[in-house]
Amino acid sequence: MASIYRTLYCGDVSKAQIGQEVVLNGWVQKRRDLGGVIFVDLRDRSGLVQVVFNPEYDKAAWEKADRVRSEYVLSVRGTVVARAEEAINPKLKTGEIEVHINEITILNEAKTPPFLLEDDIEVDEQVRLKYRYLDLRRPEMQKTFLLRSKAMKAFRDFLDQNGFLEVETPILGNSTPEGARDYLVPSRVHPGEFYALPQSPQLFKQLLMVSGFERYYQIARCFRDEDLRADRQPEFTQVDIETSFLPMEELLPMMEQMVAHVFKATVGIDVPTPFPRLTYAEAMDRYGSDKPDVRFGMELTSISDLVENCQFKVFASVVAGGGQVKGINAKGCGHYSRKEADDLTKFVNRYGAKGLAWMGFKDGEIKGPIAKFFSPEEIDAIKERMGAEEGDLLLFVADKPKVVADALGALRSKFGAELGLINNEEFKFLWVVDFPLVEWDEEEGRYVALHHPFTRPKDEDLHLFDTNPGQMRAQAYDMVLNGYELGGGSMRIYNRDVQEKMFQALGHTPEGAREKFGFLLNAFDYGTPPHGGMALGLDRLIMLLAGRTNLREVIAFPKTASASDLMLNAPSEVDAAQLKQIHIATTAVKEEVEA
Amino acid sequence: MASIYRTLYCGDVSKAQIGQEVVLNGWVQKRRDLGGVIFVDLRDRSGLVQVVFNPEYDKAAWEKADRVRSEYVLSVRGTVVARAEEAINPKLKTGEIEVHINEITILNEAKTPPFLLEDDIEVDEQVRLKYRYLDLRRPEMQKTFLLRSKAMKAFRDFLDQNGFLEVETPILGNSTPEGARDYLVPSRVHPGEFYALPQSPQLFKQLLMVSGFERYYQIARCFRDEDLRADRQPEFTQVDIETSFLPMEELLPMMEQMVAHVFKATVGIDVPTPFPRLTYAEAMDRYGSDKPDVRFGMELTSISDLVENCQFKVFASVVAGGGQVKGINAKGCGHYSRKEADDLTKFVNRYGAKGLAWMGFKDGEIKGPIAKFFSPEEIDAIKERMGAEEGDLLLFVADKPKVVADALGALRSKFGAELGLINNEEFKFLWVVDFPLVEWDEEEGRYVALHHPFTRPKDEDLHLFDTNPGQMRAQAYDMVLNGYELGGGSMRIYNRDVQEKMFQALGHTPEGAREKFGFLLNAFDYGTPPHGGMALGLDRLIMLLAGRTNLREVIAFPKTASASDLMLNAPSEVDAAQLKQIHIATTAVKEEVEA
Repeated sequence: MASIYRTLYCGDVSKAQIGQEVVLNGWVQKRRDLGGVIFVDLRDRSGLVQVVFNPEYDKAAWEKADRVRSEYVLSVRGTVVARAEEAINPKLKTGEIEVHINEITILNEAKTPPFLLEDDIEVDEQVRLKYRYLDLRRPEMQKTFLLRSKAMKAFRDFLDQNGFLEVETPILGNSTPEGARDYLVPSRVHPGEFYALPQSPQLFKQLLMVSGFERYYQIARCFRDEDLRADRQPEFTQVDIETSFLPMEELLPMMEQMVAHVFKATVGIDVPTPFPRLTYAEAMDRYGSDKPDVRFGMELTSISDLVENCQFKVFASVVAGGGQVKGINAKGCGHYSRKEADDLTKFVNRYGAKGLAWMGFKDGEIKGPIAKFFSPEEIDAIKERMGAEEGDLLLFVADKPKVVADALGALRSKFGAELGLINNEEFKFLWVVDFPLVEWDEEEGRYVALHHPFTRPKDEDLHLFDTNPGQMRAQAYDMVLNGYELGGGSMRIYNRDVQEKMFQALGHTPEGAREKFGFLLNAFDYGTPPHGGMALGLDRLIMLLAGRTNLREVIAFPKTASASDLMLNAPSEVDAAQLKQIHIATTAVKEEVEA
Repeated sequence: MASIYRTLYCGDVSKAQIGQEVVLNGWVQKRRDLGGVIFVDLRDRSGLVQVVFNPEYDKAAWEKADRVRSEYVLSVRGTVVARAEEAINPKLKTGEIEVHINEITILNEAKTPPFLLEDDIEVDEQVRLKYRYLDLRRPEMQKTFLLRSKAMKAFRDFLDQNGFLEVETPILGNSTPEGARDYLVPSRVHPGEFYALPQSPQLFKQLLMVSGFERYYQIARCFRDEDLRADRQPEFTQVDIETSFLPMEELLPMMEQMVAHVFKATVGIDVPTPFPRLTYAEAMDRYGSDKPDVRFGMELTSISDLVENCQFKVFASVVAGGGQVKGINAKGCGHYSRKEADDLTKFVNRYGAKGLAWMGFKDGEIKGPIAKFFSPEEIDAIKERMGAEEGDLLLFVADKPKVVADALGALRSKFGAELGLINNEEFKFLWVVDFPLVEWDEEEGRYVALHHPFTRPKDEDLHLFDTNPGQMRAQAYDMVLNGYELGGGSMRIYNRDVQEKMFQALGHTPEGAREKFGFLLNAFDYGTPPHGGMALGLDRLIMLLAGRTNLREVIAFPKTASASDLMLNAPSEVDAAQLKQIHIATTAVKEEVEA
């Protein structure tokens, strides 16, 4: 028997092969019997091609083809033929030809899949996850993972060309001081001791800089055992980068080039560089978010100065108390009813705002309960400041700056999506920089590091360590795309005196810091270069590149929101003997026994 | 102040820059004060360059340089100057120039390292591992990890060019049926349940074939909690590959090309292809090993037929009992004393051989206690068969084939190394093929799969399922390099009837098999393509490429033989509160309390 193995891919059969014999391998996408002729759409990774069985071509093959069902695996041999004019399918890449089959081998049979293996299917996600190996056959999924593979290659190519070394760091590490989110791994060799899976390779990448590797990268698996949300996974992948002797002003443009390279190589889009930069303060002020979606305007506008003496006591007293009054202009929403406006109030309540004041301009009137407190001049000033016209709706929050930002930022995002202000084809990158170095933790009664305690302050803020650490800005940066934080990083502290001041600001004694950060500080004693880096969330980037809205769509074998793998049925119970070997007992079982 | 950041790398300064101003960054490798002039060897990732401080160039810089010690981190600015003829250092890439410094910034100080950061140091490995971040500064280590990074890139480039997709598979999976070597991870969300870290992505890569990805690869982290030996690590990296619709006769040459590409791209060596192939039977017969080092001869030679009727009862009775008598010729070792020969007997005892018979040819005499049992004709026949000459030593083992192979195979390796028969510059690849499909397990009283239960038998052996499974050969293959198994793989079973026969041969009922291999068998019901693949041990390959003899030298942050990370001090104890959260208790502590 001649070889059953393909001579080319299904999707690559074209007019160029007309008259030639080909062997194709693949799955039966569809089988139709039309007047005694059997048409099969044969599918492989590359696409579909129509193969035809007709007793005139080969009777035995035609007879065998009669048994064939969806998802059967075939090897077929036949001749490429031009389709008749009326049979040409312009939607199919191979739509101008078909293959007349004279030999078929049924490589494997298939049960009927539990759902249609097509795009845009309405199937419960639980079922899709249970049969993930079938779900992954759908063209959309095949495309997504081709994209993901291409993106990883593009990252690696860029980083390699820029002198970065790929270094693998351990998965079996140690639990961190604040290890509440660590996955622990009991040790068989060391009873009572545990490894921990890394939340990121942060420690190792800084050590690699101490080691003099200068440019490190890794597409690294990270683990975080936290309460899961739709956009989190217990294990995730980050493009992890660290550099030495490279100032932020060179690192950031390099990272922009990297991302632009990945976009070009995967979806062919030219990403304009340099990315605009917003300071944290400006981002919070204008967008109420440190990861603003700048694909649309609707910026937050302060009217504090216009209302500080107004008759509406809520506004005036908030301003007098050091708060802010800011608003957004929902263009064309002047027709909103009181009910609709009340619903918006409930929405902002979730973000800590006690209320939402509104003013609608419709049919020459000013709607909303607060309108009566303002003089015509005040209203004109507010309208002018906020660019309000007939038909618009102004929404105001008066509160502490953080509450104002959170509430109006969320409201802005809601309107952006609901009013169709967002162009989904657009990719708008930006950097948010100058993050605060520390923030006050009410609970702990001390400053805590916003990023981590090795983040370098801005040089011009160093003098504030002794007087006002809360005002200090960090050499930290986030890369933001379309309202998502793609990644972030910082320049790290490398001087012992700055590090000591930082620990002091965080309320650590020198001994306490040693205990907490152990050998990393020891390592820093042996000649640490100036260094800094960043980490990019690969899963989220692929999600945005692929135009998906859920991380589970871009991870081959993802876990559910309750951290389960429905296909593997993981996690699961194990033999008591296995636990004994690793010197642990489950307290879950014990509770059951006692109950 | 002008920028402190480098304009080029230390190792790249050359005569091309003479007269130019450069900024260099790096570590102080060495500092010498010669007649009031300070010479510093400045080191970065690229190499060394000599920088010179002289009050004539800049007094302030010269004064500052006086403080500088080994491993200080510097930024220096100066002018590239040709060295005087007599000062040229031909051993150094930058030995024709030096840099006259007029500005220095001490970026960081350094304590004196606990050991010299040079190659070929005599330092306790424990100390090196504790200060791994310093150990990694040594040129040898820098070179090793550059090599490792290059090798990974070369693998990826080759696989990408050949249509392979990189797909990431989960680290948090499920414990396997024989999960004794699994690392377990307790679940916080699911009390009493556990994830397991993968021993390999085998399951997932076969599922990806069911999914139709056709060509998958991943440079995957794998985990095995086993008693550690010098050449094992609890976490290791493998280049993991699987293909569909590709016959073994195309896969193996592709894998050869891949490895050849990696060798060319990393160490510039042309690896000849195709690799020679040895059947398992032949490898065991000629080398007593399924991973023979074929850089030298000294093959095992059977003399069973020559001695079946001899007067030496041990030989004759072993042959009569179905055993073998085989020997190796240790060229030029005829001078071995009885004591030396006895030591060799102890050596083979470890491999199960009850004794070692020997015959030395020295000064025209035949040494050894067995000589007297053989007629001159028998001795001539043995000498001729074994190519023995005056000065040689023949060593014989008479036993069951497995014992003969193990003992003589080990003895051959020992002599190969000790007699200097091995050219360490040589890389000799080969394939070992036609492995047995199953082997008889005395303990379990049944056949067990040699590779795994999805390994496809050779087509021509399928008829033996019912009569003699022990004689069946598998479509399995190992890639062997210089006596190491670099990797292995197999074609997998994809037909349900073959799979059922395989399970039957292994003593599983259909239900038992379902329970044991669960959803993978379900997956196979939905149209599984013919597939197969392999996995290459990356750590070992790098070890051989870098000419090292210990895996710890090629892993950035390795673990010791007792699975500890001496730098991290991992594993370690954790808070009881942390254990409570994940619903486990350590029984190790309990034992202590009870004691």
